[in-house]
Amino acid sequence: MVTGVLYGVGLGPGAPDLITLRAARLIEGAAVVAYPTLAGAASFARAIAADLIAPDAREIVMDVPMSVERAPAQAAYDAGAVQIAAALDAGQDVVCLCEGDPFFYGSFMYLFARLSGRYRVEIVPGVTSITACAARAGRPLVARNERLTVLPGPLPEEELRARIDGAESVVIMKVGRHLTKIRTVIADLGLTDMAVYVERATLPDEVVLPLADAPAAAPYFSMILLTKGADPWL
Amino acid sequence: MVTGVLYGVGLGPGAPDLITLRAARLIEGAAVVAYPTLAGAASFARAIAADLIAPDAREIVMDVPMSVERAPAQAAYDAGAVQIAAALDAGQDVVCLCEGDPFFYGSFMYLFARLSGRYRVEIVPGVTSITACAARAGRPLVARNERLTVLPGPLPEEELRARIDGAESVVIMKVGRHLTKIRTVIADLGLTDMAVYVERATLPDEVVLPLADAPAAAPYFSMILLTKGADPWL
Repeated sequence: MVTGVLYGVGLGPGAPDLITLRAARLIEGAAVVAYPTLAGAASFARAIAADLIAPDAREIVMDVPMSVERAPAQAAYDAGAVQIAAALDAGQDVVCLCEGDPFFYGSFMYLFARLSGRYRVEIVPGVTSITACAARAGRPLVARNERLTVLPGPLPEEELRARIDGAESVVIMKVGRHLTKIRTVIADLGLTDMAVYVERATLPDEVVLPLADAPAAAPYFSMILLTKGADPWL
Repeated sequence: MVTGVLYGVGLGPGAPDLITLRAARLIEGAAVVAYPTLAGAASFARAIAADLIAPDAREIVMDVPMSVERAPAQAAYDAGAVQIAAALDAGQDVVCLCEGDPFFYGSFMYLFARLSGRYRVEIVPGVTSITACAARAGRPLVARNERLTVLPGPLPEEELRARIDGAESVVIMKVGRHLTKIRTVIADLGLTDMAVYVERATLPDEVVLPLADAPAAAPYFSMILLTKGADPWL
């Protein structure tokens, strides 16, 4: 018997029509889909793809507990990998649903690390949140010979300051509860006027604001862009 | 009369089925499409979208001359912007075809700078070459609190060396005729073993090789990835 193929499928930033044609075709044809959830909450990835999942598809759910320890999450991915491997061994393809792009801050890494040595894995790249946020904010990210630096918001304040200070275009991901710290760094560097805050880009409850007007509390899916804008490209 | 909307539509890295559902719908319905060509050569953007363009669609072609001077390219985009503006003024929407993502090293910047103040512009983000190359190379780009640095290959050797040396995950874009210089920098830093070379990702003539085995001459659409691989994510 031929083993199945594991597809790591990027779904894009959230709007269902920002799924690629290839991803849509794979999801529609999937007898088995897999995705993680966080502490029993609804899966954002599943919500993006909901209209494409066949009613009789089997769903392998990996529930990742909320914890700063790594072991509980590792155990959840271990258990999910066992279920996925069993389906692949039985000759079934498995389509793993991934917000954004599977290889760009995606949890699919954990399954890839566990299964790519033993099974054929195909990655379907997706639209990332960084270009989706730039699109919604109307702020070109990079052109010509500009450098782009992508920084996770949880980095320590001093590291953020040093990395932003030497950069050109900067994207700060996963802002969430780190918003106050990041705002301080950006203000200290005199960059508040160029900073744009984007929350839940491409979704119906999207927020796009100058950083100075951003809310006090930011969700995990929020981002700050530090870019020059369109003027230099005339 | 209501003026038309200018759509800057990302087409992804090259495989036609990596176009998003939204982009496909817009292209199929477009009475006017626009795209640049370089020195009379065939347009890569048009080739990606070819099967979706209506046979009777009007095509606005901006032919950008090959030149290190900026003025000839600026004149080509000025002339294209005039044609696009005339269509928008006549109430027609215009769909501008963009390889990858319009705001990620895309020539759409030049039209955006010329037209976004006067017309409604909607950007449709696309799959970028960086996640497409990572997908095809089987190399996760970034996870958790890792930083990503995107560097254009034409940067001076000393700048490339300094930027790579202090980075975590690195993507070097637009390798082309800068391959020898970039190889030297990567070898000097002792990073050749982790470097992957990717050329024309997702296209039928794609090339994925360890940098050590890369050809002597690289096309413009080539990239080098410096990433840790999957092992750390177990």
